[in-house]
Amino acid sequence: MKCVKCRDKAVVHIRRHNSAFCSVCFQQYFTNQVARTIKEDRMFTHDDRVLVAVSGGKDSLALWDVLLNLGYDTAGLHIHQGIFAYSAASFEKTTRFAEGRGVKLITIDLAAEGDLDIPGVASSTRRTQCSACGVIKRHYFNKVAVEGGFTILATGHNLDDEAARLLGNVLRWQSAYLAAQSPVLEATHPRLAKKVKPLYRLSEYETAAYAFLRGIDYIVEECPFSHDAIQLHYKEALNQLEHRSPGTKQSFVQGFMREGRKAFAATTSVQLKVCSSCGYPTTGDVCGFCRLQQEVHKAKAGARK
Amino acid sequence: MKCVKCRDKAVVHIRRHNSAFCSVCFQQYFTNQVARTIKEDRMFTHDDRVLVAVSGGKDSLALWDVLLNLGYDTAGLHIHQGIFAYSAASFEKTTRFAEGRGVKLITIDLAAEGDLDIPGVASSTRRTQCSACGVIKRHYFNKVAVEGGFTILATGHNLDDEAARLLGNVLRWQSAYLAAQSPVLEATHPRLAKKVKPLYRLSEYETAAYAFLRGIDYIVEECPFSHDAIQLHYKEALNQLEHRSPGTKQSFVQGFMREGRKAFAATTSVQLKVCSSCGYPTTGDVCGFCRLQQEVHKAKAGARK
Repeated sequence: MKCVKCRDKAVVHIRRHNSAFCSVCFQQYFTNQVARTIKEDRMFTHDDRVLVAVSGGKDSLALWDVLLNLGYDTAGLHIHQGIFAYSAASFEKTTRFAEGRGVKLITIDLAAEGDLDIPGVASSTRRTQCSACGVIKRHYFNKVAVEGGFTILATGHNLDDEAARLLGNVLRWQSAYLAAQSPVLEATHPRLAKKVKPLYRLSEYETAAYAFLRGIDYIVEECPFSHDAIQLHYKEALNQLEHRSPGTKQSFVQGFMREGRKAFAATTSVQLKVCSSCGYPTTGDVCGFCRLQQEVHKAKAGARK
Repeated sequence: MKCVKCRDKAVVHIRRHNSAFCSVCFQQYFTNQVARTIKEDRMFTHDDRVLVAVSGGKDSLALWDVLLNLGYDTAGLHIHQGIFAYSAASFEKTTRFAEGRGVKLITIDLAAEGDLDIPGVASSTRRTQCSACGVIKRHYFNKVAVEGGFTILATGHNLDDEAARLLGNVLRWQSAYLAAQSPVLEATHPRLAKKVKPLYRLSEYETAAYAFLRGIDYIVEECPFSHDAIQLHYKEALNQLEHRSPGTKQSFVQGFMREGRKAFAATTSVQLKVCSSCGYPTTGDVCGFCRLQQEVHKAKAGARK
């Protein structure tokens, strides 16, 4: 197959667009797609200060790379989760990327934040690793963005991530989650950063191809706690449907933005309060992060007795 | 494993309920489930005249069998689709069931209804077999029910059918279809029969087990035109998710009834007109069946020239 742009030998095939690209044209296509998504979905402009959440994996590093190439004002935020060799390697890949590009990287070490490393939290509370990790990451993403004066928090979620999350929300018909699932979440409170997902129209295969062709050194291993995560089963199911009908994931996610979401937004409303402990927005009296932190403190106090 | 009712040896295991039954207790459980569904979802009462659409497959014959055992006033309706040996065998299984029970069976032979047999329609129009079949069956189901004075049309759709259909509608976010997907569709027009699906809470495995244990002789083969139908891929994907998390299909379908459907019903409204050709309700000026019939007539007239 030949590149649809320059007729050179194609190295990346995109079945849902029935197209193929050589290495150079693919990188251009990928960059254009991200630029167009940011513009069409009114994510941010060159006047914004963008905090990019970077795990060290292909998606977040590809995102940061594209945003730097497009000339956006960015800094990276890496959360060191304390998950043994996996986190050490993730931290190393991320810092090496930042040093190589000469860009600013903010790091939060969860173990140093009052024993919030994921294995410790999971063993001292009754939470699963994935649930604790989600609560903690969301808290620091927002806190660092707000306190650092960033107007935007960008994450590397791709089309496969969004489709899998949507399938999970739909299989359980979680109206509140469905009303809130969007690649653009506006800052509806002064202490809430605007959150965007500029890669949500690009598949996992495309972000992997981009990272590979750009020579980005990313961590290939998945988190050791995620090996049986239900999310992976959703991805597998969607991959099979995509194989049979290319474009399934894209029309699922984009159709939801166009048709589905408004149905749930119309029937769901969320009242934001302020957490009595940390002062960040929440729907309850005490936010999920502070409740988790209290559980950890309690467990530690118990262990000292 | 032992039967949860009588502690005899179990022959049917239902993972999503974490239960198992011997043959006798399973038949009782299955019958009770159908009776409860009919009552809880206000499908019909013993005063209704119920027309049961029977293909000759396990689901529709199991449904008819249960309704007869529960003492409902029923007749069967079989549509002979003219699909070679498959239809001949389906017709034979259905008539034999009706004769064996001494119950009334109405048969429509599509080839005799102006060359509406499915292979002929597909070859003389540009329709796929499955799309033509759907339009034609829906028309006759409703017409025979209304003209025969039946107050209810019952079909054998099971949980797997409903979950697969829902997944297809959700993947494409077809709001109008989502608003209209329900195991109970009221008769919103004098020439529209009330349509119900009393097996929608029971899985394909359960209806197959019931038909087998009741000694019902049903056609095992699938329609030869359906071998690559997208519906089968949806079922496969859902089966894998069900295997990982028993109860997935049930919570998907029942959650939709509770949470999802109202969101779409609130944003979608359908205005019913009357078909200028046949007089049955439709959303356009001429109904889908009459348009299909016109295409077939046109093709035949063209062939005669």
